[in-house]
Amino acid sequence: MDFAHSPRVTQLQTQVRRFLDDLVLPANAQWQRYAAAGAYPLDVVEPLKRQAQSLGLWNLFLPRLREQEPGTRLTNLEYAPLAEIMGRVAWSSEVFNCSAPDTGNIELLHRFASHAQTERWLAPLLAGEIRSCFAMSEPDVASSDATNIATRIVRERDAYVVNGRKWFITGAAHPNCRLAVVMGCSGEASGAKAHARHTLLLVPMDTPGLTLVRNVPVMQQQAIDGHCELLFQNVRVPVANRLGDEGAGFALAQARLGPGRVHHCMRSIGQCELALELMSARALERRAFGHALGDFANVQDWIAHSRVEIDQARLLVLHAAWRIDTQGATAARIDVSAIKLVAAQLQTRVLDRAMQVFGAMGLTPDTPLAQLWSWGRAMRFLDGPDEVHLRTIARAELARARAEAGSTSPYLQRWMPPHPDDLGT
Amino acid sequence: MDFAHSPRVTQLQTQVRRFLDDLVLPANAQWQRYAAAGAYPLDVVEPLKRQAQSLGLWNLFLPRLREQEPGTRLTNLEYAPLAEIMGRVAWSSEVFNCSAPDTGNIELLHRFASHAQTERWLAPLLAGEIRSCFAMSEPDVASSDATNIATRIVRERDAYVVNGRKWFITGAAHPNCRLAVVMGCSGEASGAKAHARHTLLLVPMDTPGLTLVRNVPVMQQQAIDGHCELLFQNVRVPVANRLGDEGAGFALAQARLGPGRVHHCMRSIGQCELALELMSARALERRAFGHALGDFANVQDWIAHSRVEIDQARLLVLHAAWRIDTQGATAARIDVSAIKLVAAQLQTRVLDRAMQVFGAMGLTPDTPLAQLWSWGRAMRFLDGPDEVHLRTIARAELARARAEAGSTSPYLQRWMPPHPDDLGT
Amino acid sequence: MDFAHSPRVTQLQTQVRRFLDDLVLPANAQWQRYAAAGAYPLDVVEPLKRQAQSLGLWNLFLPRLREQEPGTRLTNLEYAPLAEIMGRVAWSSEVFNCSAPDTGNIELLHRFASHAQTERWLAPLLAGEIRSCFAMSEPDVASSDATNIATRIVRERDAYVVNGRKWFITGAAHPNCRLAVVMGCSGEASGAKAHARHTLLLVPMDTPGLTLVRNVPVMQQQAIDGHCELLFQNVRVPVANRLGDEGAGFALAQARLGPGRVHHCMRSIGQCELALELMSARALERRAFGHALGDFANVQDWIAHSRVEIDQARLLVLHAAWRIDTQGATAARIDVSAIKLVAAQLQTRVLDRAMQVFGAMGLTPDTPLAQLWSWGRAMRFLDGPDEVHLRTIARAELARARAEAGSTSPYLQRWMPPHPDDLGT
Amino acid sequence: MDFAHSPRVTQLQTQVRRFLDDLVLPANAQWQRYAAAGAYPLDVVEPLKRQAQSLGLWNLFLPRLREQEPGTRLTNLEYAPLAEIMGRVAWSSEVFNCSAPDTGNIELLHRFASHAQTERWLAPLLAGEIRSCFAMSEPDVASSDATNIATRIVRERDAYVVNGRKWFITGAAHPNCRLAVVMGCSGEASGAKAHARHTLLLVPMDTPGLTLVRNVPVMQQQAIDGHCELLFQNVRVPVANRLGDEGAGFALAQARLGPGRVHHCMRSIGQCELALELMSARALERRAFGHALGDFANVQDWIAHSRVEIDQARLLVLHAAWRIDTQGATAARIDVSAIKLVAAQLQTRVLDRAMQVFGAMGLTPDTPLAQLWSWGRAMRFLDGPDEVHLRTIARAELARARAEAGSTSPYLQRWMPPHPDDLGT
Repeated sequence: MDFAHSPRVTQLQTQVRRFLDDLVLPANAQWQRYAAAGAYPLDVVEPLKRQAQSLGLWNLFLPRLREQEPGTRLTNLEYAPLAEIMGRVAWSSEVFNCSAPDTGNIELLHRFASHAQTERWLAPLLAGEIRSCFAMSEPDVASSDATNIATRIVRERDAYVVNGRKWFITGAAHPNCRLAVVMGCSGEASGAKAHARHTLLLVPMDTPGLTLVRNVPVMQQQAIDGHCELLFQNVRVPVANRLGDEGAGFALAQARLGPGRVHHCMRSIGQCELALELMSARALERRAFGHALGDFANVQDWIAHSRVEIDQARLLVLHAAWRIDTQGATAARIDVSAIKLVAAQLQTRVLDRAMQVFGAMGLTPDTPLAQLWSWGRAMRFLDGPDEVHLRTIARAELARARAEAGSTSPYLQRWMPPHPDDLGT
Repeated sequence: MDFAHSPRVTQLQTQVRRFLDDLVLPANAQWQRYAAAGAYPLDVVEPLKRQAQSLGLWNLFLPRLREQEPGTRLTNLEYAPLAEIMGRVAWSSEVFNCSAPDTGNIELLHRFASHAQTERWLAPLLAGEIRSCFAMSEPDVASSDATNIATRIVRERDAYVVNGRKWFITGAAHPNCRLAVVMGCSGEASGAKAHARHTLLLVPMDTPGLTLVRNVPVMQQQAIDGHCELLFQNVRVPVANRLGDEGAGFALAQARLGPGRVHHCMRSIGQCELALELMSARALERRAFGHALGDFANVQDWIAHSRVEIDQARLLVLHAAWRIDTQGATAARIDVSAIKLVAAQLQTRVLDRAMQVFGAMGLTPDTPLAQLWSWGRAMRFLDGPDEVHLRTIARAELARARAEAGSTSPYLQRWMPPHPDDLGT
Repeated sequence: MDFAHSPRVTQLQTQVRRFLDDLVLPANAQWQRYAAAGAYPLDVVEPLKRQAQSLGLWNLFLPRLREQEPGTRLTNLEYAPLAEIMGRVAWSSEVFNCSAPDTGNIELLHRFASHAQTERWLAPLLAGEIRSCFAMSEPDVASSDATNIATRIVRERDAYVVNGRKWFITGAAHPNCRLAVVMGCSGEASGAKAHARHTLLLVPMDTPGLTLVRNVPVMQQQAIDGHCELLFQNVRVPVANRLGDEGAGFALAQARLGPGRVHHCMRSIGQCELALELMSARALERRAFGHALGDFANVQDWIAHSRVEIDQARLLVLHAAWRIDTQGATAARIDVSAIKLVAAQLQTRVLDRAMQVFGAMGLTPDTPLAQLWSWGRAMRFLDGPDEVHLRTIARAELARARAEAGSTSPYLQRWMPPHPDDLGT
Repeated sequence: MDFAHSPRVTQLQTQVRRFLDDLVLPANAQWQRYAAAGAYPLDVVEPLKRQAQSLGLWNLFLPRLREQEPGTRLTNLEYAPLAEIMGRVAWSSEVFNCSAPDTGNIELLHRFASHAQTERWLAPLLAGEIRSCFAMSEPDVASSDATNIATRIVRERDAYVVNGRKWFITGAAHPNCRLAVVMGCSGEASGAKAHARHTLLLVPMDTPGLTLVRNVPVMQQQAIDGHCELLFQNVRVPVANRLGDEGAGFALAQARLGPGRVHHCMRSIGQCELALELMSARALERRAFGHALGDFANVQDWIAHSRVEIDQARLLVLHAAWRIDTQGATAARIDVSAIKLVAAQLQTRVLDRAMQVFGAMGLTPDTPLAQLWSWGRAMRFLDGPDEVHLRTIARAELARARAEAGSTSPYLQRWMPPHPDDLGT
């Protein structure tokens, strides 16, 4: 057991942090102005992408599966601290071609795409030429129980026809978004089991019948790249656009989630660190009743609790990344539920404290806090609401208890002194 | 970065766990009966000590400072998971000669004792022949601020005379307790600074004038080895009984705390694991309203939160142990405050949930839960109340913020768009 | 709507408070000494009972049902603030003949006893000559779901035969306890519905076959009047000892609960007030880091939160008492669940804060805090665990929602703007 | 003590609720569309105002001070339940001419305005012809400590000159806003005491030098009537525009706060009731894992806790209103701090639960929840942050403890048995 990062990771941390501080942060005000005006800030992002690529800070998230493949050869455990740094400026991931949902889609295609699919979609995604989205959640059912997903995929000869409504589809409003990876139910008629009914399709964004209905505001904020509502009305794609097998959609989507959640969680932790940094600075500067806010023991408690909660959460996420790397995503399934739960709840908790230290200013766009809180709040649903993860973790724990000892722990059986009333009854 | 334990640690974990399950646990009912009757269960403990010693499971906590010294050569990081196992049966540490406060006292003597002190006290402590206590807390002042400590140590020629009252002195009621390491104020007259006024003395328990006033119950429970109130009335010891220099008492006591807190925290985590195990078993077995308790989502939430909180806390403690090992106790000072805070609060939280799942039975001696909760509650004061640790952590965080950026983070300065009202005012 | 107490209540408050401060409190140390020695302090209690009775401070809890009956003619709303005062010294209720479980048993007998039962049991209970207990909870089933109660009552000619095990039977160890009101299942064979199977019997404590197995410690504390485990082995009582009808046990027990819970809750609130008073006094007196504890903002927050939580809870309990008085116990069923939930959780919360302000001393018998916390913790199970009350309240709320609007609130239907994608699809 | 509303209040509750359901709610979608388009919905509001006025549902908040004055003669306690109903649709208060900050300004003018001020400002405010704002908070200081307020008011002959920056000035962007009541520091030079330095001025919104800098978004939402930043650059008003005496600003502002906070709190409670209603409806309708969400015990717990917390908070607010009515605003100062604290924290808590039950939809504009949460979050600062109210409440409690018993409660002194070690030392 060793908690030290390798020299390579330490060096990359320095490089990414310097890139962020020296190049991304100074561009932030301009990025925000574009976004506030409703225009995607390609002018800001594209030059930074080229710089990052030229420095090799590109596709850092992608483990190499086979020789002579793209990818940095970083493990998830090695990439994680870099994602944490990127979290400090929400839009910076795109600069390094490490944005969700592209990262997950790239992994999916990397592992399961046909040759033609690789050429058409994976190559330009890896080059940062196009963006993509992943269309799973639906407004009319509780997507927390993914077997509820109702968008219908019907085969008609050599094509699939898609009908349904999706929402909270992140990135669909990005001007470069060309591809929707769509999860739908293809097997209801065939009577396949609940988890073997769903299929993934690669649907070009310009396919007729696919409408971007609206970019849904989240806590009053409309993300510039969108959390969109998409309507599929008789959307028709060739059978060759199917990713993996019919009915394998669920398994594929699951495989996609592990590393992606590690990235999300580490970015959240980076955002919590930023919030703690801002809250501390504010506590030093702001005065009331004759003292700096940082002299008040309740503000100190918020700062201290934030510090120890962030440190604990980071270790948990790194541990989950290590398990994915060493034992595989399936073995790490519960760990990944745990970090998703912990990081999202942490973010709203730490950000809320920071907003409180800033006073009313903390709710305004004059600090990044309100946006970050709102994103954390959304994270408590995206990739599954807290309650689903709690349920998953608890059921695993109970299953373990059941397997181990029948129902009574020997530590309880042996604890109890023989009943004092054993009178031979 | 690597989260795997070494093969040696893995093997020791197996050995200690097996010893606990096969030898300690079966003796627990008898131990409890003795203790309930007010008699220290030496008959139970001594044979187990000999067995543990013969297996080399002895003084496991003690790092080796120099060649040909006692100690297992285990680092704190390596010992930590063994302490976790010992936590499962509160009295088992003594079997492995790893009990607080002996462990801390042994470390103190190991590092600072004169040759004569080593022979007289350290040797029998390492052999498990005697026990010891550490007399710091006082009833009449807030010991959380240790500069408050008021017991007076006055030098009279070649002797020190001690007057004062101590309480919550753990272990002082153990039948083998022979030594009190006493912290007192020797420098008030000399005008030494607040942190350079205190001195440590080695006071034999049978010194005239030292009275064990009472064994104070904690949450209605009288620990069999005691959280005692001690009265020092003109207690006189030779100057040679001073440990370290005059005025160095504070520095020495601090040095003593790091590893000892790691041990406490890991034992707490072991107790939380036990509570989670019992709560899960109970949730499977107990039924209400037509369902096992484990089917109810609120009970599931308690189990899941306990799981992720325990896992996070364990990683934090292991990380602190690693820092002590690699960077020294002083560098790890804040980490040690953090784990002390986290572990004590975790224990009452997890234990409270477990008691709730057990219903009224959870409050009775029929399970170990009530005792463990009470111990966790006491831990929120022992070695410093939560609030002192929160304060320590917050002040370190604020100091870092102050050092870094003056008062305003560049991430805030650069976040803020230029004020839209910059009208040339 | 008027929040002022009537002059009569105000006067009684003054009288009871003065009695408590001038007569009960000075006797407390002696009471505690007796209890610590395991002897019930009749010598302390009996003279005080006579004094209280002579002042008319007797059976204050008992509303008058009919003319020329015992009872103070106080409503529940009028008695409630007096119960709050009694809460300040746990054992004082007995002095005013207002102790649980006698109060509930007296109400039961008052309403449902036959003439013979009234003479034999109710009269001496009202006179304070005997005490009683109520035997419902069982160790082997989740009594939270009362249909689980398994003690069997079998009729054999003109007698009932009782077999089963009860526990947490409060008051059974009181030296004057003469009567157990026993709930058992009489109707399993007859196939009666789950809530119509149980019957109440009046069982003299000295009936052969009834054994007091043990006085179960709660959080390590053995109540001097007991939370007892009782074993019924072929306990035989005449049919005339049945209270109410066969199968009516549930309905009767429910009827008994409303006022009794108001009393419990108000006493809890009195205990929370006492804790807040002690915590404030300690915060003024104790110093650390150069300040009184009460100068620290986190301690201030605990005090302030305690104040507003106590004030809210008191109003809720008074409101429930008012509803019982004006609309009857059945109409107030949900209110009574709510106050039981709120008061028990409040007590552990406020007491825990108070213990934290006192430091380690807060856990010792040197303050009443540890005992009061433990009682509060027990209250989270007695008369039903929190979870049962939460469930009851939630189901009532959901039933109301279902009744009102089908499933969608007009405030939601009308909130939603017509979908912007209503493209005539 | 009586918890029943009077017949008059009950009838007004019915009337207001019917008005809201039948007239306001149907107009809501249109109101929202206007607002989303950035236009103040006067077309929607004005006809409703005329209807409300014709029904006598007008200025309901205003107690009558003297004979033949405006005002409904409703007490604060009587108006409170009507404010609760208005809370259900945020903009409805305006319809009844009961909006903040007009209500507070009207009260101020009602009590302290000169005849000329009454004619010019109070009359049109009471008629609903104009709106007003109250300019106190400032961006550059912690306004939580109001002595920090720095806007300078300097007298030059028969005029005052104002310089400073204000923000979070609610209502300043309303198209009918004609008047700013401005708090500034007039007494720094004169050396007046901290609480006697501030003066209130009536400043017409069109005074030269007064600029509405921006309408500050709160949690990404720009209120249509604004939380505005105002810049005062050499703003000059006649001395006759002073409200009350020089240096009396603080006392006047305080007087204004009591009833206004009761209104805010009751509206918050109405919003919490709405959230609970929506959450319950959603819990009945939405299904996951084979059950309605309302069948899950964690969702039930949220519903039940919300119910009991809302009920407690309402009683506390009503009690505070009663105290204002019966004992005056000054006597109720702590009560008013308490309700402000409780209601704002309640709102974010209940709304957060409701959002969680709705899933991602709860964060979108498809329900009122996100807006209501955001408003609740802002309420945790408006009229003073939580921490200031906690401090106020705690200091009052500590002052009471100090006054009562010196530092040690008799309940502690008498609790403690004489020390067992009283050995005559």
